Amino acid sequence: MVPTAAILLIGNELLSGKIRDRNGHFLATVLRRRGIRLIEMVTVADTLEDIGEALLRLLARTPLVFTSGGVGPTHDDVTLEAIARATGRTLVRDPTMEGILRGHFGASITPEALTMADLPAGTLLRAEGGWPVLRLDLGSAESAVKPPEGVRENARIYILPGIPELCQAKIEALETIPGELPDAGGWALEVLHTELDESDLADALNGVVADHPAVEIGSYPRWTPDEQGQLRCVVRITFEACGDARPQALAARDALAAALGSAAWTDPANA
Amino acid sequence: MVPTAAILLIGNELLSGKIRDRNGHFLATVLRRRGIRLIEMVTVADTLEDIGEALLRLLARTPLVFTSGGVGPTHDDVTLEAIARATGRTLVRDPTMEGILRGHFGASITPEALTMADLPAGTLLRAEGGWPVLRLDLGSAESAVKPPEGVRENARIYILPGIPELCQAKIEALETIPGELPDAGGWALEVLHTELDESDLADALNGVVADHPAVEIGSYPRWTPDEQGQLRCVVRITFEACGDARPQALAARDALAAALGSAAWTDPANA
Repeated sequence: MVPTAAILLIGNELLSGKIRDRNGHFLATVLRRRGIRLIEMVTVADTLEDIGEALLRLLARTPLVFTSGGVGPTHDDVTLEAIARATGRTLVRDPTMEGILRGHFGASITPEALTMADLPAGTLLRAEGGWPVLRLDLGSAESAVKPPEGVRENARIYILPGIPELCQAKIEALETIPGELPDAGGWALEVLHTELDESDLADALNGVVADHPAVEIGSYPRWTPDEQGQLRCVVRITFEACGDARPQALAARDALAAALGSAAWTDPANA
Repeated sequence: MVPTAAILLIGNELLSGKIRDRNGHFLATVLRRRGIRLIEMVTVADTLEDIGEALLRLLARTPLVFTSGGVGPTHDDVTLEAIARATGRTLVRDPTMEGILRGHFGASITPEALTMADLPAGTLLRAEGGWPVLRLDLGSAESAVKPPEGVRENARIYILPGIPELCQAKIEALETIPGELPDAGGWALEVLHTELDESDLADALNGVVADHPAVEIGSYPRWTPDEQGQLRCVVRITFEACGDARPQALAARDALAAALGSAAWTDPANA
């Protein structure tokens, strides 16, 4: 079984186009490298309802959800409260998190800063040293709260910050903790290029797709100007497989290469 | 009433991290400029079920959904079939689209290329000249099919290509058609900067938020190295309003500027 995950990006600034997402894309590459299948990535506004509904919907699809954004001290930071409400928990001041905040802000700490220590009951601090990652295991033995209906017993939420530099650092910190994140050994990726039009290779491609059900095959045309400034279209065909099926990625690529003959090449330098 | 919209990005390549989204971000900026509130952006895999479920869910939230991706001729292009199934329509070969394809591919056109002319019944071609944008009005008089339950009579789907250059060109083409897309006059955007920590400005900010309910206020810390290489944190606070509330963006900014005094500035050159 390939492990799955979903990403919930939170922030009006993403929906208004002021910010182009980096966190979701970075995390997607990390998940892919670890052989985790990302099944959905969704961006919602800074409201309790939107965050809560999206979270429960994603948790009904996969036991592993990463959120990013909305964990600061201002009015538009409502992620912790949204997660608490959606999962039927109260917000509880976490003494360790309070200590981290007091160490950071010193004697001048405000009540608003301290709200960042009010975490959904049962939240664990991971990757400490600086700002921790918040992890909420919905079915953990420590928690007396049952997971919401439709959510698996082993469901887990990682609550990441929205600031890209911090978010990326926290994901990298999680990766350094042995056994923290699933690892299914990554995906094998093989690539073929062709100047055939997608519609001309579709027939051969369909055959290879049918013969290699464990391989995820994608076809991506890209136009680039040649030396004369003419647009030249090269289709990049990717073959990916994970777990025991890894060797089949190469087999699928070789099958299509054989079918297309001299019209296809593997060297990316000519892509 | 502020018009709303949602974006449905389709493609395994986005979920695997191979591609970082550009289409959703570009469209978000266009919608924002037109005063349309983007309520959700979601990325799903190339499957009939995932696309169909996401589409109906979004259509239950807003009458205007843009899809991007999955409209080519290969096995992983299932958007048209997914939309047809989800909306209870058949796929019908569109003669105008067939003519466009035959003009493009010539006598050597393949059956797979022609499948790109098989459109959900009732689909209109917009922004013709080259590749058209596909538009499906779910409650249109021409269509004998009722919208799915929970979907508004005026619901509309724009079906855009996934290739960023094409997608962007098609959005720009739609914008040139008078009355094609809603336009609520755009958003007023005012900005304030401060080196105060977010938690130190939260109290004043909460007051301004409470006094200006029509203004969307966001607070975004950003760390940048100064000339000595020390990290300096500047918080960018944005005040946005649309429609009749536009002037209130400036009023809200001025209210916070007055509350923060010399700790805040408006000149972006110092940001």
